[in-house]
Amino acid sequence: MEEELELSEKIEQLTETIEQLIDTKNVKELRHLFEVVPEIDLAEACAEFKDVKKIVFILKTVKSEFTAEFFTDLPPEIKEEIIAYLSDDQLAEILESQFTDDIVDDLEELPANIVTRVLRNVPKEKRANINRLLNYADATAGSIMTTEFVALLDDMTCDDAIKEIRKTGKNKETIYTVFVMDRKRTLVGTVDLDDLIFADGDAKLSDIMNKDFQTVNVNDDQEEVANIVKRYDLNAVAVLNNDGRLVGIVTVDDVMDVIEEEQTEDISKLQMVTPLEDSYLETSSFQMVKKCVPWIVVLLILGTFSSFVLSTFETKLNQMVLLAAFIPVIMDTGGNAGGQTIALMIRGLALQEFTPRDFFKIIRKEAVSAAIIALCIAAFGFIWFTLEQYAGIVGSDTSIWLGNCWNAEFAAETFKTSGLVAGTLGIAIFLSKMVAVLLPMGAAAIKKDPAIVSQPLLTTIVDVSSLLIYFGFAALLFNL
Amino acid sequence: MEEELELSEKIEQLTETIEQLIDTKNVKELRHLFEVVPEIDLAEACAEFKDVKKIVFILKTVKSEFTAEFFTDLPPEIKEEIIAYLSDDQLAEILESQFTDDIVDDLEELPANIVTRVLRNVPKEKRANINRLLNYADATAGSIMTTEFVALLDDMTCDDAIKEIRKTGKNKETIYTVFVMDRKRTLVGTVDLDDLIFADGDAKLSDIMNKDFQTVNVNDDQEEVANIVKRYDLNAVAVLNNDGRLVGIVTVDDVMDVIEEEQTEDISKLQMVTPLEDSYLETSSFQMVKKCVPWIVVLLILGTFSSFVLSTFETKLNQMVLLAAFIPVIMDTGGNAGGQTIALMIRGLALQEFTPRDFFKIIRKEAVSAAIIALCIAAFGFIWFTLEQYAGIVGSDTSIWLGNCWNAEFAAETFKTSGLVAGTLGIAIFLSKMVAVLLPMGAAAIKKDPAIVSQPLLTTIVDVSSLLIYFGFAALLFNL
Repeated sequence: MEEELELSEKIEQLTETIEQLIDTKNVKELRHLFEVVPEIDLAEACAEFKDVKKIVFILKTVKSEFTAEFFTDLPPEIKEEIIAYLSDDQLAEILESQFTDDIVDDLEELPANIVTRVLRNVPKEKRANINRLLNYADATAGSIMTTEFVALLDDMTCDDAIKEIRKTGKNKETIYTVFVMDRKRTLVGTVDLDDLIFADGDAKLSDIMNKDFQTVNVNDDQEEVANIVKRYDLNAVAVLNNDGRLVGIVTVDDVMDVIEEEQTEDISKLQMVTPLEDSYLETSSFQMVKKCVPWIVVLLILGTFSSFVLSTFETKLNQMVLLAAFIPVIMDTGGNAGGQTIALMIRGLALQEFTPRDFFKIIRKEAVSAAIIALCIAAFGFIWFTLEQYAGIVGSDTSIWLGNCWNAEFAAETFKTSGLVAGTLGIAIFLSKMVAVLLPMGAAAIKKDPAIVSQPLLTTIVDVSSLLIYFGFAALLFNL
Repeated sequence: MEEELELSEKIEQLTETIEQLIDTKNVKELRHLFEVVPEIDLAEACAEFKDVKKIVFILKTVKSEFTAEFFTDLPPEIKEEIIAYLSDDQLAEILESQFTDDIVDDLEELPANIVTRVLRNVPKEKRANINRLLNYADATAGSIMTTEFVALLDDMTCDDAIKEIRKTGKNKETIYTVFVMDRKRTLVGTVDLDDLIFADGDAKLSDIMNKDFQTVNVNDDQEEVANIVKRYDLNAVAVLNNDGRLVGIVTVDDVMDVIEEEQTEDISKLQMVTPLEDSYLETSSFQMVKKCVPWIVVLLILGTFSSFVLSTFETKLNQMVLLAAFIPVIMDTGGNAGGQTIALMIRGLALQEFTPRDFFKIIRKEAVSAAIIALCIAAFGFIWFTLEQYAGIVGSDTSIWLGNCWNAEFAAETFKTSGLVAGTLGIAIFLSKMVAVLLPMGAAAIKKDPAIVSQPLLTTIVDVSSLLIYFGFAALLFNL
């Protein structure tokens, strides 16, 4: 937490410093600053400027090698404003220094007229790649890959490879993984830069390359790409098109963004809110309403079932209003118990600890622990609910605190009520945990997103069923 | 999903292949396999063996340079069994090839007698480091760092640096980031390997090093370390002790594990289940019960408040049982609305989109959107609840379906009830969203974990307050 505070303070001070340097036209100091401060900090500091012309001034005065990443890190709405102030030549120069995948990310967020201008001014050799990348579906390997990678022939010696990397590697997204092709331009291996450094200079790349390299297809889901990079501790993974040709790479830093994005999606779905596209502070209240309201309405409509069940048992409830007092605790506990299982399922599937093929193993395992948990809670509940009644917290008119004596009839009634509530609770817990396994595992089995079963949806399902069980048993036990 | 299925099939086949090679004592083919298949796949495949002696056979026949990572990737309980079968010499040889941080990770999971044996057989130069690492508190930078890094003097030339790296770098966790010290052994910069490759051979490290390098303290929380590595796209970050000396590094692949661990923790806390230490399938039913039951019990006890409130209003409920029908929908909707906000808060804080310093900005923002959302839902609810009553889904005895005609008195009662429920709903939503902001932001402000406010806890808080509001208004409106 300390670091965070420091960070936001650091950015604030940086904003002031840069503004001062620009106002006093202290170009020398400004250039120095861009050499020694991390680009992301500079970008966040400048994003606070009231006047974007100041950023335009920076882009015009500081060398593009120091502003390339700085520009990439600026928020899209500021980029949009800046581009309006730039001549075509200046825009072309900035785009020249950008990586293809970063330009593509921008194009997806900028308005159409700006997109046209950017595409017109992008260097020719990049334009084809950009157009191709733009065509890949969102959240696929193709949409997050970059086309700037080092590819060398397999009969090259290590010394020559290092020379070649020195010559051409500067504009590549990474040189830590070199992709090795045969004469037919087919990917046959990868060489990590450290292996290249340690290798004998005369050795051929084919001698030292990893032949067990991993690849993904352009259409693979980005989550799959992330799983592979994580599992094999890769610096970059090769992306092949449908013909098996190497068309791009995804690097580990892009994968970290994917992991975060997917995690946000999981938590959002779990709580049934549409994930925000922008950061929280950048999202308007109106957008927030749009992300939240539809789901609450859906759940409210589903909640009608609960109301219907309760209403159906209205006469029974009328005969024994004490039953109402335990409705919240039954509903909540069932939902809470299932919620725990949902958390375990979502993480297990996300971390690939198990797959839908383990369906029966998981069901068995969860059934055993759910049964034990249900029994424990029911036993505890029985004691607790008895105490509640005994102490007069519920059913106060029969309580000892009001001077009633403990007698056999009262005891029998109390135990019967506690038994009813505890029994329902146990069944609700077991049921809830089973639904919490079945739905996500079933979804994963038919290749749907396992996050389909959100906590609120589960709560609604469990509410209706536990109310039915509750009143069903109540009718039997108390002859209502 | 396809990849996942393929992966588990691949592992299954690999298990068979390796077992066959061992059974037929085909050492040559076995050694080849260990050169061309990723270690993590081999480890997972061998973990399926019924007889761990087969793994011992592998460790004795395949060269340790190919089994080092393989051994690291084996599950701890299998390591424990294997170590029992190894002589001290064999154990020492395996430990020789392991990274210090991996040995430490193992030691934290192994039983005491095995720990003693491991420490006795670990190479002397590693023992001091291991003992130091073991002393760092869990989840700090010190506990996840490794001590195998490349540190060079700042007046070294780039050519000499590369020579030195070639000589000593093989046993280091990474050579992609070189840490640069001055004569006083103080860290003064870092050099990325690619910059070293591109640099003029005669240039000094001090000329090309990044002076804006990031560092963390050994006692910093691992989440903070992860945030820095992510933010600045680092390959490795320097860990300093309290005297400012470089004592270790944390690499990007360790950071990915931290990110996953923290995410699991966030989702688990959100759903109020103690995070599992092992993977789901490896966790016994008994452990599962231990992780789940305490929280359900806590929530059940807290649920007593709801029961108490309902019981207090028992006589009012008796006068108008119709009120009970809407209790589930009010309770659920309040909880659901707040749950959405919790998801946004937890992700925002985790991704450092905002900090506790933005407290008032966030509160204002959330208050505006919560108010709009509450109004929207209340308006929708009013219409929906009226329809429910009109259609006889609730309060069936007064419904049109039972032949009752629509008359002024019935209409007035219906609208009054709908108004009561919708109004309570609106207030509950607003309240719930406010609590969902205040608790995590407050926790973050006093440097506690913002995940303190779980969905179930929020539900319980909202339940009690909305029931109070509901019956309070009901008493006023219907003179109960």
